[in-house]
Amino acid sequence: MRNWLLPEYIEDVLPAEAARVEQLRRSLLDLFKVHGYLYVIPPMMEYMESLTTGIGHDLDIATFKVVDQLTGKLMGIRADITPQTARIDAHMLNNQGVTRLCYAGSVLRTSPDGLARSREPLHVGAELYGHAGVESDIEIQRLMIKALHTVGLDTLYIDVSHVGIFASLLEHAGIGEAQEQELYAALQSKDQAAVRALGRGLNPDTLEALSSLTELSGDISVLEQAAKRLPQTEKIQQALRDLKAVGAGLDDLDVKVCFDLAELRGYHYHSGIVFAAYAQGYAGPLARGGRYDEVGAIFGRARPATGFSLDLRGVVSSLPVAETVGAIFAPAIADDALIFVVESLRAQGQVVIQDLPGQEPYRAELGCDRILVQQNGEWVVVAAPEL
Amino acid sequence: MRNWLLPEYIEDVLPAEAARVEQLRRSLLDLFKVHGYLYVIPPMMEYMESLTTGIGHDLDIATFKVVDQLTGKLMGIRADITPQTARIDAHMLNNQGVTRLCYAGSVLRTSPDGLARSREPLHVGAELYGHAGVESDIEIQRLMIKALHTVGLDTLYIDVSHVGIFASLLEHAGIGEAQEQELYAALQSKDQAAVRALGRGLNPDTLEALSSLTELSGDISVLEQAAKRLPQTEKIQQALRDLKAVGAGLDDLDVKVCFDLAELRGYHYHSGIVFAAYAQGYAGPLARGGRYDEVGAIFGRARPATGFSLDLRGVVSSLPVAETVGAIFAPAIADDALIFVVESLRAQGQVVIQDLPGQEPYRAELGCDRILVQQNGEWVVVAAPEL
Repeated sequence: MRNWLLPEYIEDVLPAEAARVEQLRRSLLDLFKVHGYLYVIPPMMEYMESLTTGIGHDLDIATFKVVDQLTGKLMGIRADITPQTARIDAHMLNNQGVTRLCYAGSVLRTSPDGLARSREPLHVGAELYGHAGVESDIEIQRLMIKALHTVGLDTLYIDVSHVGIFASLLEHAGIGEAQEQELYAALQSKDQAAVRALGRGLNPDTLEALSSLTELSGDISVLEQAAKRLPQTEKIQQALRDLKAVGAGLDDLDVKVCFDLAELRGYHYHSGIVFAAYAQGYAGPLARGGRYDEVGAIFGRARPATGFSLDLRGVVSSLPVAETVGAIFAPAIADDALIFVVESLRAQGQVVIQDLPGQEPYRAELGCDRILVQQNGEWVVVAAPEL
Repeated sequence: MRNWLLPEYIEDVLPAEAARVEQLRRSLLDLFKVHGYLYVIPPMMEYMESLTTGIGHDLDIATFKVVDQLTGKLMGIRADITPQTARIDAHMLNNQGVTRLCYAGSVLRTSPDGLARSREPLHVGAELYGHAGVESDIEIQRLMIKALHTVGLDTLYIDVSHVGIFASLLEHAGIGEAQEQELYAALQSKDQAAVRALGRGLNPDTLEALSSLTELSGDISVLEQAAKRLPQTEKIQQALRDLKAVGAGLDDLDVKVCFDLAELRGYHYHSGIVFAAYAQGYAGPLARGGRYDEVGAIFGRARPATGFSLDLRGVVSSLPVAETVGAIFAPAIADDALIFVVESLRAQGQVVIQDLPGQEPYRAELGCDRILVQQNGEWVVVAAPEL
């Protein structure tokens, strides 16, 4: 094995792309900040119990495990940051009202995942704790849309669903976990025939409702149909009213909102409205999120919760390449006037590379398109001559 | 075990401190950028062979290991970023001239390490490849000093040494590795008696020189003494001239430079000048680095190299607490004029938190010291009334 080979689905981010990642990372954190979201830096590593509870439920096999040699306990390298922010809200901050948190950090996955099929997505996201109303679902989705606009993605489609409808339909049906899993899979692939076959033992109304979910997909008019075709229980009708409110709440933004009631991503830990954002020309979802009330219970403090995240590394790798900015080459002369000019240019944000003995022939390699030269006793920046 | 407990020496960085970390992270990366250092993002995880070669030599037991389930090979979670940048210089960029790289990222350690006794230091650093002369040692040390000034540390002491002197003294002595290790340890603790005892079999000149290293510590005049007391070999005299050049090269900066020829940190992989920065009131070194020529050889391309890094997390945890900035509370009213004002304030960098139903009583908890109210038909910002 050559020592410089990287594991599969693990990559360096090299200068041009890294500069783009850094610039967008800053823009996103600044966006979150002015909306009142406080930046936190949870650790890369925690006890497995903390990482895979609640919203981390499905992450066990995705998480790299290591033994803590100080205690012998099993720790995991985080595969998601959301369970960590839920823990921070529940125990570190202890607010009575709403807590808004945001983050930007690498996570590791045992298998490739997400937009870029990477084992090291860079998760950037925002989470809102302590508010159960649809207003916070709307706030989070609006923030996600602004975030994607910030990243430069303009033509957006938002898929919205509500996992509470499926959960509510099954609640009194008395079916086992295996059958529930199969029904879930059949709905996710919109396989109506499979839903009907799997649900044969259910009462006809429930089966009819489950089967209709595969057809309830489209613009806001879908919600009117759903209100008629699904059971008239308060829970289901409230879910539909909340979805309608989301549609109205995103109405002034330049996005297309689609409702898809068979979309049940993460219904193990999601508890209400879930959503995902797509853009023209991109294969997978660019950002996603949803409501996960009650997962804080495992940390001893249940709080309503909703949030979203995106993989900035994946997003940047699919953006067009950014232009490079160029730099100024300064000679290696110990001259106070030169040093003053060099430092002034740097203070203005200009990149100035001071020569090291023997490096002049390589200045193009360094991206130096201008040089500092002395003219009439003054140091001035001029276009770099050909080498 | 309670699910919200973190492993020992693993911590969350909560909002006030995280904001400070982020602000300084940006300032440092901007500083590096205007000096021509290109930002790279190496992965959190690599094959063990890559992470622990060359400059990673001493990191084996500090590195958490996981099995790559795609290949069955052993991977490590990085405990240091420098070996990764050396790999990037050697193989990804392939410059003929100098390459300047910088980075900012978490590393994990199996045992606590560094200023903050953490198992997750945040390494921020800069590396310079492809230049063997003392001018690049000086460039890197000047950059380190500017970085520490940027972080807000003013009264600095720089300890400088040269591991080549010890290596050169031992080169022809024909002693075994065990004895070398013991001599190294005795020198590090400046135990002259131990050095004399351990070196009993060596030729008297070599022993005398090794023994004198424990005394050669102080200001630049130490170098004059050393030139007389140490052997007159070209290698050793050149090392002393280079140290003298470093002293001169840092002369215009507001730092105290100390030379300590018994300081041999990392002499396994360091090959020349090494240095560490201290500040008044801080126990350990705040930043350190040195020359590590030839370590790229393991990646198939030996290049001269020098660099430095600091643990930003550790540094911030020992800085005084920063003041919070405050925020503006906006009512939850769907009013176009209000939305316009809110978005304008946010565009200016103001934090504006829009109310969610029922959250007004908690606005102090959110740090809202001002509110938006309607006066004569206009939305204006006023001091928040007492709750």
